[in-house]
Amino acid sequence: SRTIRLAVIPGDGIGQEVVAEGLKVLGAALPADIKLETTEYDLGARLYHRTGETLPDSVLEELKGADAILLGAIGDPSVPSGVLERGLLLKLRFAFDHHINLRPGKLFPGVKSPLAGTEIDSASPTRRQIDFVVVREGTEGPYVGNGGTLRTGTEHEVATEVSLNTAYGIERVVRDAYRRASARPRKKLTLVHKNNVLVHAGRLWTRIFEQVGREFPEVTTDYLHVDAATIFFVTQPERFDVIVTDNLFGDILTDLAAAVTGGIGLAASGNINPSGEFPSMFEPVHGSAPDIAGQGKADPTATVLSVAMLLEHLGFTAEAAQVEAAVAADLTERSGARSTSQVGDALAARVSG
Amino acid sequence: SRTIRLAVIPGDGIGQEVVAEGLKVLGAALPADIKLETTEYDLGARLYHRTGETLPDSVLEELKGADAILLGAIGDPSVPSGVLERGLLLKLRFAFDHHINLRPGKLFPGVKSPLAGTEIDSASPTRRQIDFVVVREGTEGPYVGNGGTLRTGTEHEVATEVSLNTAYGIERVVRDAYRRASARPRKKLTLVHKNNVLVHAGRLWTRIFEQVGREFPEVTTDYLHVDAATIFFVTQPERFDVIVTDNLFGDILTDLAAAVTGGIGLAASGNINPSGEFPSMFEPVHGSAPDIAGQGKADPTATVLSVAMLLEHLGFTAEAAQVEAAVAADLTERSGARSTSQVGDALAARVSG
Ligand SMILES: CC(C)[C@H](C(=O)O)[C@@H](O)C(=O)O
Ligand SMILES: CC(C)[C@H](C(=O)O)[C@@H](O)C(=O)O
Repeated sequence: SRTIRLAVIPGDGIGQEVVAEGLKVLGAALPADIKLETTEYDLGARLYHRTGETLPDSVLEELKGADAILLGAIGDPSVPSGVLERGLLLKLRFAFDHHINLRPGKLFPGVKSPLAGTEIDSASPTRRQIDFVVVREGTEGPYVGNGGTLRTGTEHEVATEVSLNTAYGIERVVRDAYRRASARPRKKLTLVHKNNVLVHAGRLWTRIFEQVGREFPEVTTDYLHVDAATIFFVTQPERFDVIVTDNLFGDILTDLAAAVTGGIGLAASGNINPSGEFPSMFEPVHGSAPDIAGQGKADPTATVLSVAMLLEHLGFTAEAAQVEAAVAADLTERSGARSTSQVGDALAARVSG
Repeated sequence: SRTIRLAVIPGDGIGQEVVAEGLKVLGAALPADIKLETTEYDLGARLYHRTGETLPDSVLEELKGADAILLGAIGDPSVPSGVLERGLLLKLRFAFDHHINLRPGKLFPGVKSPLAGTEIDSASPTRRQIDFVVVREGTEGPYVGNGGTLRTGTEHEVATEVSLNTAYGIERVVRDAYRRASARPRKKLTLVHKNNVLVHAGRLWTRIFEQVGREFPEVTTDYLHVDAATIFFVTQPERFDVIVTDNLFGDILTDLAAAVTGGIGLAASGNINPSGEFPSMFEPVHGSAPDIAGQGKADPTATVLSVAMLLEHLGFTAEAAQVEAAVAADLTERSGARSTSQVGDALAARVSG
């Protein structure tokens, strides 16, 4: 019987609450002969205030032995902006070479979108089908932390941020995106960049996108500038199938994608290292929401959908589908306010049932 | 009697058509004792194909003598991406130090937004009021063109893009945004950045935002990460009053703003140099739309609203308000398809009438 070693990083704010429900559903979904061994790591604002550390070397070392990581949320108003984000979340993504940041944008039946014409209406065949996935590059671009300041704190300060882009880094994420597009019914891949302004990085992305595309003649491709892409996200989201884009554009587009598909409470993500050399990490797209933390108000669905991605990644394809089906069913029948654990219980029951 | 020297750059695609209507309305709006002297410059794809030039030095020199510039749209599929954008449009913005890139996001009565709950419904008092303005920095950030490639064209290529940010550059746009916020009824200013990831530029923006804010105690402020801002643009656009942000984030947010306020056919912009040292430039946010060029299908309203901004900039405040009122009235009564020139005629008639 196989054992899964799962590292759990609940993090800050609502992280604790949503991760607890994710684990509940994971336990219910795994086949009986699979042993789940979880190790919890208390990282985030508390550790930072206690020790000044964000990710101790020893913890990073230990995490390498995990099969996967489940993360809740990182960030707290008591910590200066960027400290936990760069020192913990991005450090993990970079240290474990999570170059595929996978973020589905799917409007489940029964879910209300802020867009007109997307209402629940099983009778109407015109209901919009939003079902795409963003393949966001996770280890390059403006996220590398390369930059600095001169004459810091004065009226003559200059601050730079350098976006680093390599053929190697772009090629692997673009190839991954083509593979995903090729495996989907519509077989469509859209490159999003801003190659009319960021011409150096833009030309490189465009060249590699075209080059790799020759290996996938079955995939239809197009290109959109990031600004134009935001327009289509609200006017015609059904046009998208697979989108591949850089780290920063992917960050922006996936929050917008979450908004148009029913909100950040439902948006899942996987930080994937396909080689398996290091553990992949699954996390809801939402943040730590300190304003509602500890009140049992947070929707754990995004975490549960991230657990489905985790299952898929570990090879439990049927179980992943089961979790997604449980969420889909739950969303159709939702009514009235439920607490975080009530939603988790309902989903776990559906999965076991 | 005063003479206004207006430089006109129709540019590519639908640029010609929309600029013609903009000029029609400008002529109708200007007081009888004002002489309008227009000089048209044939810049864009045609010139580039003929001579390889995007903005000849002699033209740049001549443009300096104009009181303002009206620009249609730049860009054509026959020209490699970036050539006209960087060589003409951005060159003008940088050469004339257009550091205030002003872009209103206003939902006019009668205009359909893709967002639910924004429909035409004069009877319902719950109709959402979207009326904000984005003050986008126009001369710094990732737009400076600072970057390059190494091992170009090989599998070992590295491409960089450097975002340059100066205290001087940020301070002037932030101060402008505070002034605008202070002059509006709600007096609210939101800084949008990504200071949890782009920490060097982010800290500088945040420091200056707070520093300048001390001079404007009457202005309420808040901060949003750019990804979170896109969510609010679709779920709660009425929360925004004035937004100040960097060049790239401003580019992205203003296309999204256009989408939620009825589309890019209505979005106006001003590239402003408040010192008056160089002429300011007014242009619709939309592109050259080569797919519909020459068919009389383009909506000239965005250009006409840009003309209103131009009038305001030149001190014709009453005339600017008149043009905006004409657009507002026209939008309420619109029905059926009209050609580009029919819309222009209708607006000019309202303005003269
Ligand atoms: C918290 C932040 C560093 C992070 C990012 O920018 O990637 C978040 O917005 C996300 O999308 O996962
Ligand atoms: C055409 C392009 C260079 C330009 C920009 O990125 O600024 C456009 O998108 C805009 O918003 O005016």
